[in-house]
Amino acid sequence: MSLTGFIGLGNMGGHMARNLLKNGKKLIVYDVNKTVVEQFKAEGCQVATHPADIAAASKEIVTVLPSSPHVKAVYQGDNGIFKTIQPGTLCMDSSTIDQIVTLEVAQAAALLKAEYIDAPISGGVTGAQQATLTFMVGAGNDATFARAEAVLSLMGKNIVNLGAVGNGTAAKICNNMLLGIQMVAVAETMNLGISMGLDAKALAGIINTSSGRCWSSDTYNPVPGVIPNIPCAKGYAGGFGTSLMAKDLSLAQNASTNTQAPTPMGSLAHQIYRILARDPTYQAKDFGVVYQFLKKQNV
Amino acid sequence: MSLTGFIGLGNMGGHMARNLLKNGKKLIVYDVNKTVVEQFKAEGCQVATHPADIAAASKEIVTVLPSSPHVKAVYQGDNGIFKTIQPGTLCMDSSTIDQIVTLEVAQAAALLKAEYIDAPISGGVTGAQQATLTFMVGAGNDATFARAEAVLSLMGKNIVNLGAVGNGTAAKICNNMLLGIQMVAVAETMNLGISMGLDAKALAGIINTSSGRCWSSDTYNPVPGVIPNIPCAKGYAGGFGTSLMAKDLSLAQNASTNTQAPTPMGSLAHQIYRILARDPTYQAKDFGVVYQFLKKQNV
Amino acid sequence: MSLTGFIGLGNMGGHMARNLLKNGKKLIVYDVNKTVVEQFKAEGCQVATHPADIAAASKEIVTVLPSSPHVKAVYQGDNGIFKTIQPGTLCMDSSTIDQIVTLEVAQAAALLKAEYIDAPISGGVTGAQQATLTFMVGAGNDATFARAEAVLSLMGKNIVNLGAVGNGTAAKICNNMLLGIQMVAVAETMNLGISMGLDAKALAGIINTSSGRCWSSDTYNPVPGVIPNIPCAKGYAGGFGTSLMAKDLSLAQNASTNTQAPTPMGSLAHQIYRILARDPTYQAKDFGVVYQFLKKQNV
Amino acid sequence: MSLTGFIGLGNMGGHMARNLLKNGKKLIVYDVNKTVVEQFKAEGCQVATHPADIAAASKEIVTVLPSSPHVKAVYQGDNGIFKTIQPGTLCMDSSTIDQIVTLEVAQAAALLKAEYIDAPISGGVTGAQQATLTFMVGAGNDATFARAEAVLSLMGKNIVNLGAVGNGTAAKICNNMLLGIQMVAVAETMNLGISMGLDAKALAGIINTSSGRCWSSDTYNPVPGVIPNIPCAKGYAGGFGTSLMAKDLSLAQNASTNTQAPTPMGSLAHQIYRILARDPTYQAKDFGVVYQFLKKQNV
Repeated sequence: MSLTGFIGLGNMGGHMARNLLKNGKKLIVYDVNKTVVEQFKAEGCQVATHPADIAAASKEIVTVLPSSPHVKAVYQGDNGIFKTIQPGTLCMDSSTIDQIVTLEVAQAAALLKAEYIDAPISGGVTGAQQATLTFMVGAGNDATFARAEAVLSLMGKNIVNLGAVGNGTAAKICNNMLLGIQMVAVAETMNLGISMGLDAKALAGIINTSSGRCWSSDTYNPVPGVIPNIPCAKGYAGGFGTSLMAKDLSLAQNASTNTQAPTPMGSLAHQIYRILARDPTYQAKDFGVVYQFLKKQNV
Repeated sequence: MSLTGFIGLGNMGGHMARNLLKNGKKLIVYDVNKTVVEQFKAEGCQVATHPADIAAASKEIVTVLPSSPHVKAVYQGDNGIFKTIQPGTLCMDSSTIDQIVTLEVAQAAALLKAEYIDAPISGGVTGAQQATLTFMVGAGNDATFARAEAVLSLMGKNIVNLGAVGNGTAAKICNNMLLGIQMVAVAETMNLGISMGLDAKALAGIINTSSGRCWSSDTYNPVPGVIPNIPCAKGYAGGFGTSLMAKDLSLAQNASTNTQAPTPMGSLAHQIYRILARDPTYQAKDFGVVYQFLKKQNV
Repeated sequence: MSLTGFIGLGNMGGHMARNLLKNGKKLIVYDVNKTVVEQFKAEGCQVATHPADIAAASKEIVTVLPSSPHVKAVYQGDNGIFKTIQPGTLCMDSSTIDQIVTLEVAQAAALLKAEYIDAPISGGVTGAQQATLTFMVGAGNDATFARAEAVLSLMGKNIVNLGAVGNGTAAKICNNMLLGIQMVAVAETMNLGISMGLDAKALAGIINTSSGRCWSSDTYNPVPGVIPNIPCAKGYAGGFGTSLMAKDLSLAQNASTNTQAPTPMGSLAHQIYRILARDPTYQAKDFGVVYQFLKKQNV
Repeated sequence: MSLTGFIGLGNMGGHMARNLLKNGKKLIVYDVNKTVVEQFKAEGCQVATHPADIAAASKEIVTVLPSSPHVKAVYQGDNGIFKTIQPGTLCMDSSTIDQIVTLEVAQAAALLKAEYIDAPISGGVTGAQQATLTFMVGAGNDATFARAEAVLSLMGKNIVNLGAVGNGTAAKICNNMLLGIQMVAVAETMNLGISMGLDAKALAGIINTSSGRCWSSDTYNPVPGVIPNIPCAKGYAGGFGTSLMAKDLSLAQNASTNTQAPTPMGSLAHQIYRILARDPTYQAKDFGVVYQFLKKQNV
């Protein structure tokens, strides 16, 4: 049986790789964290010294990396995938990065007779663990999508075909920009309403059945006491950190500058999360903590 | 049978008054628009020359007025309600106004042994017509709420008890501030995504099943072609105008200044809708037209 | 010799009243702070129990009060100036308040055959002490301006005739809105430049001789070490507090809402200073401390 | 006599190159615009087919290019300077580009035993014509600065030594971000003041002698009639275009993202100029036209 390559065994990638294993895939893996790599070796995986080793051994590769520079290095670096990639290889990148980098790497892959497609994910660590992720896929054509789907469906339950390469990244960036804006908006709205005399649950009740309804209010409301068992109920521990949100908002700003599409709300949310991401009080917390940043100001 | 007073027979109030009539109420009405008043007279209503005439004839009064100064004038003006109000009268105000005015008028009513409560509405002209409005009620106590509910339930299906007087206004202002922010946010997100190469429906599909999900995207998406039969499908005719949104956002800003609660997103949305509300191209359009304002900038 | 009334003997008003004394004026004074009133009594001033006593005793009155509600109370309250004001009285208000209140109080004075003009000040505590203040005067006509100038010139060196009543307030609000925006702008620009590797003094040198030149950079640069002997050189002690700036920016926002003039930068500066004004770390500091708020975020 | 290379003979570069000629330099030039190149040939310059030809013929090269990609192409492209650059060559780049590109190109030059320094300019077309430009120079060391100064001083009167390579770019980006913010701020302040009843000149007079004083108000006030002979007096023709300002503000945003320094005002100014730069009504106008964008909204 042929090998599947997997690069990036972090919070998300680790669970995703294990779901491939559970579904019978044989893996060759790489990560900069040697401890994690040893665990996968103990579970029966082959281990690579460099990304180039993966590409030499496998024609089906999944990458889950933190940011644009990491993707560039893993694919185009000195010991990167493109040094050894075989014609006909399919690279599926589930990182959230600049669309411009996605397009550049895809173009470089095409010159090497291989394919690089973007397949960023939503669903969080729980989704990665339970194989219920959504993959937003920019595969370029239906045949490539079908080939990718066969792998990705082992790690998620929603594999969305968005067409051209780059479109998966675009969709992820857009959704997360909207999410970042909405979380600040819900935080300031709840704080204003409470300052005006309203009970938090009563206000959320009105909003969630009215035109202000949104995920940041009805599923992830950042005011403690409104919704149980989410990060704000545990001191904003876990969840989606302010620095990850700041990073995703910076990708949206880069895309806005490139496309010249005005994003006034997105740029303000970016600034606010940048402030939180650098403040020791907030930087390790879930992004709902923006409510505390605003509330703290009240007497 | 005793008379119910009704002041403000505009787009919303006209339908609401008719629903009271349908449910067997006898009305005495007032409006500055004499043509509309004549219609109600033809339908069997008594007609008042001044708000003071209403208060002299009725102990149950509904008001639906455009803004804070109108409410002050109708209640506290020279021929206003408070000139003739009878002890024990219940005034139900469904206007959307400054909370500070709500509280002042309520205090003045109390000195006259009467009650003034706030009961702003959501649900739009359709809700007013079909008696499916939501009333956000700040009645102060359960007995008053019960008395108000008996009237309001003839005009709506959701009569929410929010406690203290002023709380109905607070909830309405908060929801609409959040709505205004979200509409700009959805507009700029859709425009960015389309600029990045995405199909509008595909992007909306991703958002509506992800963490960016909100009413402004899944029910009132401002991009023509995504959702049928809403204002954006008809050139942004009808719906909720940019100047009404600018007004509601200004109420939120007044509340923010009074309570000193920071509202960075709300203040930016206020500025944007103020710009649209003064521009001949946008001022008479549904508030989703902010999408065209941003999109127009693209080549 | 006739008496001059003086109401509001705070940080600014105290020095201003003393300059009138030095120039030979006989004063009747009022303040809520009884200790301060006793000092003026010891210096030979008559003392009033209420603002109404001042108006009964004097036809030339100066008021220097913290905010719109104080002005309303002192003029229109139960024991206020308008209870006893004599025809022909000239009230000169050096408070910085909502223009709409200025216009209302002026109108009320006119009905009583008296005059109320706005004469807000710039120049700070030092200017008040040394009688070098600038007065921005909205006197309505030249004769009234000349009458006011005779008094105001004993407390300042620049008495500017801006025409209609309300114009002094407008000019003060506009200048301070611009100032608030520029201070945030200089703070974020200096912080960005330093983050990019520049020396603070070298960057200020470039800006101060280029098109970015402004008072907040060349006279009041908020980065410690660039300019000596200003608040930022002393831990941001003294100077113009963040809460005063937040208040002045709220007046600008009220004016923007009333006139429907868009102020995107002013509204963002308002939000930022509101955040600082409520934060225990920043609320008692000079408004240049916004530099520390932004800088603190850097690693 | 040795040749000086000159690449980029546009609005600024053309005048700068002619000032080198006037001062006795012999030039070899390159531009994509062949008509302009022919003019310089007619004036006695040598002409190059590619940037590489310049580097082969000259060890002293000035470049004045529109944006980061142009600089990359001219230096690092297929027929670029670095293909033929001689050890000991000094490249002086007066383009305004991303600091990160400046640093990358400088590093590449160093590997080739050559020097690339940044020397962006201020002073506009008039300054270029009259050799009164300011050069903000990041030369890295005093010897290199002295060598650059000998050339740059033939084209400007202020050659500022800012130290490390990249610092010239940083200073230019910072100044122009501050300028962009201030122009919007002055425009909205003037519009607000006029809406409140003030005469434009009277308001400018107050601001220019108060703490709101800045270049955008006292030298380049965007309200027609306040200052003669600047672009706003001629329908905003000429001057510094909205699209150039949008571009410079995008460089500031890129720098903010890279350094993680929060720039709330800068990001809002960026969005506003991006909107203007894409609007047919404003895109070809001087950046003071933001006043008309805001004013137009008034009834």
